Amino acid sequence: VLRVWTEDAFSGQMTSDEDIPSRVLKFPFVNPLTGPFFIEQAEPGDTLAIHFIDIRPSRGWGVSTTIPYVGSLTSTKHTVSLQDPLAEKVWIYPLDREKLSARFRARDSTYEVDMPIKPFLGTVGVASSNEVRSSRVPDQYGGNMDTSEACAGTTLYLGVNVRGAFLGLGDAHYLQGQGEVCGAAIEGAADSTVGIGLLKDYYCSWPRFENDEYIMTAGSCRPLDDAFKIAVSELVRWVSTDYGLSLMDAYQLVSQVNESVVANMVNPNYTIVAKVPKRFLPGDKRPMGDTHAKLKRMADEYRFSPGT
Amino acid sequence: VLRVWTEDAFSGQMTSDEDIPSRVLKFPFVNPLTGPFFIEQAEPGDTLAIHFIDIRPSRGWGVSTTIPYVGSLTSTKHTVSLQDPLAEKVWIYPLDREKLSARFRARDSTYEVDMPIKPFLGTVGVASSNEVRSSRVPDQYGGNMDTSEACAGTTLYLGVNVRGAFLGLGDAHYLQGQGEVCGAAIEGAADSTVGIGLLKDYYCSWPRFENDEYIMTAGSCRPLDDAFKIAVSELVRWVSTDYGLSLMDAYQLVSQVNESVVANMVNPNYTIVAKVPKRFLPGDKRPMGDTHAKLKRMADEYRFSPGT
Amino acid sequence: VLRVWTEDAFSGQMTSDEDIPSRVLKFPFVNPLTGPFFIEQAEPGDTLAIHFIDIRPSRGWGVSTTIPYVGSLTSTKHTVSLQDPLAEKVWIYPLDREKLSARFRARDSTYEVDMPIKPFLGTVGVASSNEVRSSRVPDQYGGNMDTSEACAGTTLYLGVNVRGAFLGLGDAHYLQGQGEVCGAAIEGAADSTVGIGLLKDYYCSWPRFENDEYIMTAGSCRPLDDAFKIAVSELVRWVSTDYGLSLMDAYQLVSQVNESVVANMVNPNYTIVAKVPKRFLPGDKRPMGDTHAKLKRMADEYRFSPGT
Amino acid sequence: VLRVWTEDAFSGQMTSDEDIPSRVLKFPFVNPLTGPFFIEQAEPGDTLAIHFIDIRPSRGWGVSTTIPYVGSLTSTKHTVSLQDPLAEKVWIYPLDREKLSARFRARDSTYEVDMPIKPFLGTVGVASSNEVRSSRVPDQYGGNMDTSEACAGTTLYLGVNVRGAFLGLGDAHYLQGQGEVCGAAIEGAADSTVGIGLLKDYYCSWPRFENDEYIMTAGSCRPLDDAFKIAVSELVRWVSTDYGLSLMDAYQLVSQVNESVVANMVNPNYTIVAKVPKRFLPGDKRPMGDTHAKLKRMADEYRFSPGT
Repeated sequence: VLRVWTEDAFSGQMTSDEDIPSRVLKFPFVNPLTGPFFIEQAEPGDTLAIHFIDIRPSRGWGVSTTIPYVGSLTSTKHTVSLQDPLAEKVWIYPLDREKLSARFRARDSTYEVDMPIKPFLGTVGVASSNEVRSSRVPDQYGGNMDTSEACAGTTLYLGVNVRGAFLGLGDAHYLQGQGEVCGAAIEGAADSTVGIGLLKDYYCSWPRFENDEYIMTAGSCRPLDDAFKIAVSELVRWVSTDYGLSLMDAYQLVSQVNESVVANMVNPNYTIVAKVPKRFLPGDKRPMGDTHAKLKRMADEYRFSPGT
Repeated sequence: VLRVWTEDAFSGQMTSDEDIPSRVLKFPFVNPLTGPFFIEQAEPGDTLAIHFIDIRPSRGWGVSTTIPYVGSLTSTKHTVSLQDPLAEKVWIYPLDREKLSARFRARDSTYEVDMPIKPFLGTVGVASSNEVRSSRVPDQYGGNMDTSEACAGTTLYLGVNVRGAFLGLGDAHYLQGQGEVCGAAIEGAADSTVGIGLLKDYYCSWPRFENDEYIMTAGSCRPLDDAFKIAVSELVRWVSTDYGLSLMDAYQLVSQVNESVVANMVNPNYTIVAKVPKRFLPGDKRPMGDTHAKLKRMADEYRFSPGT
Repeated sequence: VLRVWTEDAFSGQMTSDEDIPSRVLKFPFVNPLTGPFFIEQAEPGDTLAIHFIDIRPSRGWGVSTTIPYVGSLTSTKHTVSLQDPLAEKVWIYPLDREKLSARFRARDSTYEVDMPIKPFLGTVGVASSNEVRSSRVPDQYGGNMDTSEACAGTTLYLGVNVRGAFLGLGDAHYLQGQGEVCGAAIEGAADSTVGIGLLKDYYCSWPRFENDEYIMTAGSCRPLDDAFKIAVSELVRWVSTDYGLSLMDAYQLVSQVNESVVANMVNPNYTIVAKVPKRFLPGDKRPMGDTHAKLKRMADEYRFSPGT
Repeated sequence: VLRVWTEDAFSGQMTSDEDIPSRVLKFPFVNPLTGPFFIEQAEPGDTLAIHFIDIRPSRGWGVSTTIPYVGSLTSTKHTVSLQDPLAEKVWIYPLDREKLSARFRARDSTYEVDMPIKPFLGTVGVASSNEVRSSRVPDQYGGNMDTSEACAGTTLYLGVNVRGAFLGLGDAHYLQGQGEVCGAAIEGAADSTVGIGLLKDYYCSWPRFENDEYIMTAGSCRPLDDAFKIAVSELVRWVSTDYGLSLMDAYQLVSQVNESVVANMVNPNYTIVAKVPKRFLPGDKRPMGDTHAKLKRMADEYRFSPGT
């Protein structure tokens, strides 16, 4: 069990709606992670299991923004146009940490509304086998997937590429819509507790998630089509392998009951998460060696003795 | 109020898991629609509102299949490769119309499971302004969007392009995962009841959906990235226009609470549906002239006197 | 042999660099074609051969422009952003019809330069089998491909989908870069002479071009990746079928000597043209029933008696 | 001036058409480079100029192949399908180094043909600012662009990101079609001579090429659309900056005379090269501080005293 504090994606530099992102931020020094943690006994060919026990805001406010040429509804560094950028704006969201809600306050009118928050870690990854990538990139090793599935109660599986795995975590989002459309969630520092497990001699090529209801896969690529194909094909193959269905039967079953959501369409690779409810899968099978259940029990024990 | 019967997407030609799709189907004679219906008083520049009151299976079974070079996890006519196609297979799903469930039966093993069904119309569209398109294509005029949002309780808005609108409906899906991954839902004939409304002198460029909880937009294009951008930008503009927020505030608000799901990634254009919960929007505003509420009341009255 | 006059893509409405495209143009009434011509004896399953004998400007000037949200370096109606459009500008190009050159005159400085012109028809197509498409769309039936290969000396092959084929031509470009980047070529009215041939009982699914040096294919789709895959796979299959190489050998040979250029990345579908020099193909084979050679002879005879 | 020997992309392991790529190759140990070379005085913010003086085959044969799930006309690791891979095949090309030609020999028939070769370096790159990437990836720093423009007589400009630049070269292609369609060129070891220059305090964000006739830019991204937009927008900005045209005039001029070719559509990022002939640009201007001309003179001097 690890307890980590993570700074927000802006390295704590955006504190007021008077800030101008393009001046305050010093690229590429954004999206800082805590770690890397060397996981003992983790060897290439294993799979690391990260069970999110608890993720909570460590400040009383979060912040979102529009940054020039960043976001889904603007031309970007990679989807270039000759047009001027959108306006740079900052929104500060006061939190009510009892009610777990954030307050949206319009900048150009008086409208305000409370939004229930659901904190998660935008970036959780291990080292790649043969590259060193920016913390802004999601890929096979996890990274900046920006999916709200990385929240308390869920287990994330990442294939280990180098000895020790080198786990990094950060980029907490108190709340985020699907796609992270404007380029930033309600970003904030967080205190997180995660339980770590290891599946020896089993390697999953792309990130997998599991909670009590779903098994899920994350594909990250460009364009979104390819992220979708990766996520769904990995899901089909997982169902086939761990639940004993033929590939075509798994393809058919998944096709009728999957959920497929856009996690982000703003990072250097885009991410889609594909999900299938466990209740439609053979109930006598336990995916990934029943690791999710084991880590949940560990988390429960940990909660009874939080001083550990 | 219209009551329509629609044949399934295979024109009723696939009836057994012994059928071989590439022999049974005669392209382009698939995806037949009922209609077109001439809507009196509908003029270019108006918007048609179609409230789905009831959609129910008119047979005791549904059917799904894999067709050569059709689907998200195969090369296709448009995303070409030199590879051989996947196997052609047919799955027949017996329905329990009381319990509203369909039974998946694996073809290559003994696994079976019941799936609760949620019938919707895969294709609902009006005439384009200057083209005649196949019923397999989703675009600005609606069409083959294959989104499960086109179900009972929801209102669909489509801009009228020609006098009379020329509404067509069909392609009922008893159940479908997000993306229609293998290329076919659990397809079936259906009996549907829809209420029709008309917004004069208000034109929406892309399809909009509304139910009691959400306002939603559908973008259809290739690649999926562009479908996503269309759907979300239309949602942002809709929130800005009908709820009185500035464009940048609407962009920010939508970014934190939207849901974005892949409706289909198998049709000639792909479709993404973007959604925002009404509870985060100014409560004193009624989008689209409160048409959804009016059509719901009409539906309720109709249900009390169903003989009409 | 047909002699046709075609109006420019702006229906002749843009005549001065004072014009403002978004006011002058009345969408969708742009890109007018001459035709359709009913080709006797053309039946579905045949292929029409159109040999461009001569294409020459019928005015002393051409015109190009930037239209809001049209072009490769701006967000568009399909690749949406919330950004403002680029400036609307018009460039008038005086022609020297003796030297076959057009004069570029900068709008914001005094720079001027002559460009040798190479007139071609941007849009040449036949009827689709089951749709009616805008003349702005390129697809399997040809249409608005905007490739400079459609110039004098080249033969274009288009599969016939309906009796009579319904050939339409227009959208002459005096000169255009590869991609039609800003959304408009040097557009102009033209007088064209084309020779028509027919291959009975041979259908080509996608447009093919042939000149003395090359055989070429055009793929039109979105994204550009899919246009590329269509064009190159059609080229590989053509080489395999007409020149007697195995599919894998054709794949290998084409991979080492093909040329692949972006024809347009501004139309509703993008077009890529893939080419392979004939000198690397078995010299004893005549592609497409030697139709190009036959039409060239017809053109030569026609030139000797131009009064016909 | 550097003289370097580079091994082929298969690390010299493919030597016979009996080899089976998926067994012989040990990923990720492919595409080896020679270097990195520390360039004295190169500092971040400068631009390195690499003038290709001479590139010649160092063996009497080259080799091409199809590797499972690699290539433009197959599903791949990133554009996934559930289909079986294409056949694995190897083609050995004997060279005639006097005539500079390679002999294609069909595997499945007796057809043979000579192809004139045009050797170039598929991979030339410098270190990234904050990542370590595989030599298989092309990006802003150059890398595995696989463009035939990297041939004798051309100068390549790469922005320097770290002190010393860390130049790496390799992956010689004796011949390659545009797109590197099957995934491999005619690959071979090579002896190359390159002249090195440095532009102090001038940084170009994306790779630029210059020869006597053209200025050129390379954009690398996915999908191909984004590679195209990067390449053409960089070309437009370059013309505007170095030749004194307004951005809109540069956009217009480039649009009418650019050439845009697909360099590769098989690497992790795809590459498009956009070109504009110098003869259409203000003749009194010298792009990039006249570096190309200076390096050519250096190359000429070097050729007179090759022992240096």
